[in-house]
Amino acid sequence: MYQLLKQDGRARRGTFTTPHGTIQTPVFMNVGTQGAIKGALSAEDLARIGCQVELSNTYHLHVRPGDDLIRNMGGLHKFMTWDGPILTDSGGFQIFSLAKLRKITEEGVAFNSHVDGRRIFMGPEESMRIQANLGSDIAMAFDECIQIPSPYAYVKDSCDRTYRWLVRCKAALAAYNGREDAINPGQMLFGINQGTIFPELRMSHMDRIAELDLPGYAIGGLAVGETTQEMYDTIELVEEHMPKDKPRYLMGVGTPGNIIEGAARGVDFFDCVMPARNGRHGHLFTWSGIVNIKNEKYARDERPIDPQCDCPVCRRFSRAYVRHLFKAEEMLAMRLAVMHNLSFYNTLMASIRRAIEAGEYESFRRAYTETLDTRI
Amino acid sequence: MYQLLKQDGRARRGTFTTPHGTIQTPVFMNVGTQGAIKGALSAEDLARIGCQVELSNTYHLHVRPGDDLIRNMGGLHKFMTWDGPILTDSGGFQIFSLAKLRKITEEGVAFNSHVDGRRIFMGPEESMRIQANLGSDIAMAFDECIQIPSPYAYVKDSCDRTYRWLVRCKAALAAYNGREDAINPGQMLFGINQGTIFPELRMSHMDRIAELDLPGYAIGGLAVGETTQEMYDTIELVEEHMPKDKPRYLMGVGTPGNIIEGAARGVDFFDCVMPARNGRHGHLFTWSGIVNIKNEKYARDERPIDPQCDCPVCRRFSRAYVRHLFKAEEMLAMRLAVMHNLSFYNTLMASIRRAIEAGEYESFRRAYTETLDTRI
Repeated sequence: MYQLLKQDGRARRGTFTTPHGTIQTPVFMNVGTQGAIKGALSAEDLARIGCQVELSNTYHLHVRPGDDLIRNMGGLHKFMTWDGPILTDSGGFQIFSLAKLRKITEEGVAFNSHVDGRRIFMGPEESMRIQANLGSDIAMAFDECIQIPSPYAYVKDSCDRTYRWLVRCKAALAAYNGREDAINPGQMLFGINQGTIFPELRMSHMDRIAELDLPGYAIGGLAVGETTQEMYDTIELVEEHMPKDKPRYLMGVGTPGNIIEGAARGVDFFDCVMPARNGRHGHLFTWSGIVNIKNEKYARDERPIDPQCDCPVCRRFSRAYVRHLFKAEEMLAMRLAVMHNLSFYNTLMASIRRAIEAGEYESFRRAYTETLDTRI
Repeated sequence: MYQLLKQDGRARRGTFTTPHGTIQTPVFMNVGTQGAIKGALSAEDLARIGCQVELSNTYHLHVRPGDDLIRNMGGLHKFMTWDGPILTDSGGFQIFSLAKLRKITEEGVAFNSHVDGRRIFMGPEESMRIQANLGSDIAMAFDECIQIPSPYAYVKDSCDRTYRWLVRCKAALAAYNGREDAINPGQMLFGINQGTIFPELRMSHMDRIAELDLPGYAIGGLAVGETTQEMYDTIELVEEHMPKDKPRYLMGVGTPGNIIEGAARGVDFFDCVMPARNGRHGHLFTWSGIVNIKNEKYARDERPIDPQCDCPVCRRFSRAYVRHLFKAEEMLAMRLAVMHNLSFYNTLMASIRRAIEAGEYESFRRAYTETLDTRI
């Protein structure tokens, strides 16, 4: 399903075909955890800002409104009216970051919901059942996201268990795909590499999960406490062990600079809550660096947020107006900020793709990696 | 500027021409107090939902971001990117409902800002200066909005003063319109009738302000404590004294039923925060009555909010999805709800206009006045 169109250094320009359309990679997935984008963006807005893949969350949608309800409503695509590709995270990360009173066994994880406290059990089969009910195009494996630092022995045992869980995920999803009433019978499973920052555990885990010949592989458990250099080193290390003919997804990363560096190391898929979260705080990404729109100096600034941007916000509104909306605590402030930031990320990916196609990725990387993460 | 196209009973179908376009009346003005619509709607959204007139507030925009800033930015139309007609309320109502430590003199009102507590003075000249800076198409007179009930003697004195203030408003706005650097030299002044529910004060005040031959007249100070019947009686009473060749604006009213009844009594302009406010609480207007979308019974309801509605929300989203957004506390919930409710009001006005044109207003009124305000 993955086709490599062009390689420039380790950076890859490719396509990945899903039941809901072909994705141009490298790609940034726009996060809609609960089946909606933060900042009051609708699926219609996503289409306008160049979103290719929407990302929702198994755990959140299971808790509310319930994956059985979404299945009854025809699946997540229909429920949220998004016709493009959807990737669903497995719930693993959220269980380990949000839920309380976790108990991990070989079977899976028992925990209390962060919404109403009720006891929930989720293992590989439950996660696949939920994701099959949602009918996403890409289902993520159910894994343990290990905190950094953790003892070597714990990480090794966890990686072994995550591998066994992956084998069960593969079998479970294949069974759901074979059912006559499958919402999305072409649903694909991505495996997730773990191992914190222990090089040998990362490599051996990647080698083992690669043998399962899944449609794609993710690097999980990064951006959770290690240094940026450790993250980059781990990506480089793991990438050598990842199948060349499958897409690679770096989960939950990151700043524009992180993404440029990730793509330079052969990553194809990215996602991060940062553009939406920073947007809601008035931190706006531009090609000259980060603008804090609440700053007094923008009060009478008639320019768009980013004069180089042609997103629906920059084509229409001034910095002065967006700043006013933030100061007046109008909800529209957040919507315009999130819409701009997601547009910026989607445009960044288009620029990355063009640079790889042109064989100019190194100069692109040198020009922008640091600039984009700088505050102006 | 007002042209009566058709009369059906007392209901009037007309047009009102402003520097930013011709308004089809009866019309509901969509409230964007601070230069933005609640629920994260942008000026672009307003155009999509059939909004004809945007209404902003003198007091709020004076306090934040400042009318001098908006003037520097080219006026409110440009600032918020709305090219259609804008009406600005004078600030009178807000001073009497929001501001603290008010002191009323013949000159005007001194009060403390509800935002930062700073002392502000506003009289007829200040209100006109601010509205000239904003460059709205219709400026409202600076008046005292008297609470109901109030003693007769107080109401009489207040009406006399509001009349003297109106004379000063007219002179002040004429002076601003004559300036070379006027933002909107065709800006028009509407006078506001007051008098609480004392019939003779309402009538005598209306007679006096009518003599000033202003482009339009409003009935103010209603929906602030009187009964609905008292409101309707007051409208009927005042309407007889309003010029036939000028539009009539019933300020701050009301439910769909109130609007149908108001139009039946010859009112041409309406505004109300209700559709946006109720929307934010999940109370949605439909042609069958009010839907409380948070109700469990809509959890798996695949129908649009209102099957008879063709607004951008009803064309795309299910009740089940909108309900989920409310339960999950997604900002998109409010946006879709407000967008639907404002669309509903704008569509209601189009239906009212068609009914008058067809000479069928009475049967329209009988069919809908009560239904629309009922909860289903």
